[in-house]
Amino acid sequence: MKYTEINVLKDIELINPIFIEALPGLGHVGKLAADHMIDELGAVKFAEIYSPSFPPQVFVGDEGIIEDMINELYYIKDLGEDNLDLILLVGNTQGLSPEAQYSMCKDILEFLEQYEISSIYTLGGLATGHPIESPKIYGAATCKENIEKLEELDIIIRSNDGGIVGASGLFLGIGKRMGLEGSCLMGETSGYFIDAEAAETMLIKLTELLKFEINTEKLDEKAKEIREMLEKAQKMESELMNRSSPDGDDLRYIG
Amino acid sequence: MKYTEINVLKDIELINPIFIEALPGLGHVGKLAADHMIDELGAVKFAEIYSPSFPPQVFVGDEGIIEDMINELYYIKDLGEDNLDLILLVGNTQGLSPEAQYSMCKDILEFLEQYEISSIYTLGGLATGHPIESPKIYGAATCKENIEKLEELDIIIRSNDGGIVGASGLFLGIGKRMGLEGSCLMGETSGYFIDAEAAETMLIKLTELLKFEINTEKLDEKAKEIREMLEKAQKMESELMNRSSPDGDDLRYIG
Amino acid sequence: MKYTEINVLKDIELINPIFIEALPGLGHVGKLAADHMIDELGAVKFAEIYSPSFPPQVFVGDEGIIEDMINELYYIKDLGEDNLDLILLVGNTQGLSPEAQYSMCKDILEFLEQYEISSIYTLGGLATGHPIESPKIYGAATCKENIEKLEELDIIIRSNDGGIVGASGLFLGIGKRMGLEGSCLMGETSGYFIDAEAAETMLIKLTELLKFEINTEKLDEKAKEIREMLEKAQKMESELMNRSSPDGDDLRYIG
Amino acid sequence: MKYTEINVLKDIELINPIFIEALPGLGHVGKLAADHMIDELGAVKFAEIYSPSFPPQVFVGDEGIIEDMINELYYIKDLGEDNLDLILLVGNTQGLSPEAQYSMCKDILEFLEQYEISSIYTLGGLATGHPIESPKIYGAATCKENIEKLEELDIIIRSNDGGIVGASGLFLGIGKRMGLEGSCLMGETSGYFIDAEAAETMLIKLTELLKFEINTEKLDEKAKEIREMLEKAQKMESELMNRSSPDGDDLRYIG
Repeated sequence: MKYTEINVLKDIELINPIFIEALPGLGHVGKLAADHMIDELGAVKFAEIYSPSFPPQVFVGDEGIIEDMINELYYIKDLGEDNLDLILLVGNTQGLSPEAQYSMCKDILEFLEQYEISSIYTLGGLATGHPIESPKIYGAATCKENIEKLEELDIIIRSNDGGIVGASGLFLGIGKRMGLEGSCLMGETSGYFIDAEAAETMLIKLTELLKFEINTEKLDEKAKEIREMLEKAQKMESELMNRSSPDGDDLRYIG
Repeated sequence: MKYTEINVLKDIELINPIFIEALPGLGHVGKLAADHMIDELGAVKFAEIYSPSFPPQVFVGDEGIIEDMINELYYIKDLGEDNLDLILLVGNTQGLSPEAQYSMCKDILEFLEQYEISSIYTLGGLATGHPIESPKIYGAATCKENIEKLEELDIIIRSNDGGIVGASGLFLGIGKRMGLEGSCLMGETSGYFIDAEAAETMLIKLTELLKFEINTEKLDEKAKEIREMLEKAQKMESELMNRSSPDGDDLRYIG
Repeated sequence: MKYTEINVLKDIELINPIFIEALPGLGHVGKLAADHMIDELGAVKFAEIYSPSFPPQVFVGDEGIIEDMINELYYIKDLGEDNLDLILLVGNTQGLSPEAQYSMCKDILEFLEQYEISSIYTLGGLATGHPIESPKIYGAATCKENIEKLEELDIIIRSNDGGIVGASGLFLGIGKRMGLEGSCLMGETSGYFIDAEAAETMLIKLTELLKFEINTEKLDEKAKEIREMLEKAQKMESELMNRSSPDGDDLRYIG
Repeated sequence: MKYTEINVLKDIELINPIFIEALPGLGHVGKLAADHMIDELGAVKFAEIYSPSFPPQVFVGDEGIIEDMINELYYIKDLGEDNLDLILLVGNTQGLSPEAQYSMCKDILEFLEQYEISSIYTLGGLATGHPIESPKIYGAATCKENIEKLEELDIIIRSNDGGIVGASGLFLGIGKRMGLEGSCLMGETSGYFIDAEAAETMLIKLTELLKFEINTEKLDEKAKEIREMLEKAQKMESELMNRSSPDGDDLRYIG
């Protein structure tokens, strides 16, 4: 069984599409942004990707129907004022081993050569480990020109500052070696839950970069839902704390 | 050394057999059910399967004779009122790495293509982490028709509810991609010991699904044995507790 | 780089040799016994074996000269009253991954086919986790005839009793599938240190099985050295304990 | 994707160069020494090496430009009074798996065969786990002649003393099997931070061994910087300790 199995569902013709990687990562920031683009902009799936390095399992989905571990390629044509063609890479997992990460990334970029992609954007999260009031968007890129474009939109440039782990890093690195320029957007997130707010903030930056419009209402609603869920959880926790103390005092500050 | 070595022991002819996967997993629920079917229904072994991804060890079996880590294929002909042919996959282990899990599953399904199997059942456990009074049977499937069949027998359908890890999940997922429909039965189990009670409950559901009869007395005895063993262990534990306190009080609530 | 690289140093002719596996394992019981046989009986090295699954390191040996991670094959001709030929597999490591364990074992047995080996003995340890007064020797085998031979020499037969992990188990299992019979001797050991006493006891059983004589004086000395070292260590520990208490009492029973 | 991808940037001619391995390891002792040689002696990069067993990530470098995980080969011609040619292997990572370590090491040595290298030096650290006043340099080698050369320069020879893990060990081991002699220098380091002082001490020994001169001022400055940083960190820690006690006592000796 080869590392990467790419099943093409549909022959498509695109004009120098931009390739956007948005596999699940920290806070699912990139994934949420790209899934929202697919829904709102009517992106069409044209390929399915499997790897024996995905977690060896299936998910139980809606009404008991099982879902494979999978990566998928979607396309969008004539987007925004520059009539851009896009290819989006989304999915419910990344490869587990370093070798799989490298091989899948290379295999997918080689598969995409036929579409003559013009550049790469990778969408990820930057975990802070503490709650974020209003998430900032950070950037890095393969070349100075891209860094300047990111700076123009007030994206904060990370410098000599750790790594970008997984697909969001490797697609830039291996892309560069194959002659492709690229940029990475990273949405600030606590990293503790699925972060629709960071995804929305990142998506808005992406609309400015690629000059297209998108209704972010549903992402906004999701962000509100998650916020309410977290607040409920915190309230329940503090009520439980009070209940365990006979006179209602919060024991956290005593014992 | 290839991932999957399949040694055919016997040429057989079957009419669109149903394939049942019952490798060891949570509570050994599926394995116990299938081993009981093999014993009671006189299933015949026709292939042995080895993988370099099995645990690198042998077991010491009866009277010191060593036993390989192995997967085995058995068949049963003309079972029940629908005269079904069955193929059962059993064994004492699963592959250790994700790659081995995917490869073995694919290799076995490709090997089975010659028998033109009609559908797949995978038998697993669903661990709750706490003791179970009377185990329920849960289900998931590759298509709506199968879900309906499971619901008719009061099997509880999991929905948007985690994953099915290992062979029980992958045989459905990879099977679906090869054009095969399938269902997974999951017996509720604490997950802390070999669970013959969950296996018996699951086997009874399977007899209803596939319309055959089987004597479950031995499985029932095994369930009783395990129950008695657990009760003895609990009693011993509580006696030890009492003995360590000079006046017979249970110290668990003091120190 | 292939899994197993076997470099033959010397062409040899042997008459249906017995193959003895004694790679390092629990308490190094098998390794110590085989290394002693090599020294005392003047065994000759005829092949070196390397694997990319050995630990990625070298040892610093005598006077700073580095030593590879290696497995080695030695032979002995015309041993004992039955004029037996032997092949011994020794080394300073085993492969790290399950796949390497299986592949190396198979590659070595296939390499040995040219010598037409008659049977396999694997020498290992059986860890108890507590100190052993006088180590017993346990056995398991691929067939009933071998079990009977072991029982005649008062070797205790393990039955339905866990596994034999690593080379000592796999050489029997894969050997059996290749048509070779074999036995495993396991020397009881605490498992906490290199156990020359268990090795000596095992070696004496092996001399009875294969009917040869060997001077075990050096192994006996090594066992004494290790015993003295352990006693010193215990004494130092208890002195340190006393010193830390101002009045010389052993604090272990107070605090 | 093959294990080792070696991209040659420049055809070079060297006369029996000495090969120096200095990939990142304990305290980055070897890496700092070799990076300093490259800067000070104007070494020229002639090949880039990639592996799918590198960590699956990129670094964010100067001004947001991403940097691949990479190994690199540099050369220096006509160095010192013996007009030595050198090849240096440096990088920001080593392969993650044992198999990758072995394969990369072998692939690189086979690639280097065309340059007819005369000997191997590997530069590493020897971690003590506690602060080092003035780091000593330890050595090991593939042969007695090399050990004598190291002893002449008061390099301390390790003997029967553990292992050399990773590239610094394997290049010697595999090199020896390919007919190459080699030596390993190990700079004593706490192992807790990047150790420019150990690197400087090691570099001075290397100048004596290979008879060349080098300005170590920058390495000296780096060592001072690191020392000051550590002292600041310790001071801050002890101030924090005092502040947490209302009357300024250091609580570490009470509670």
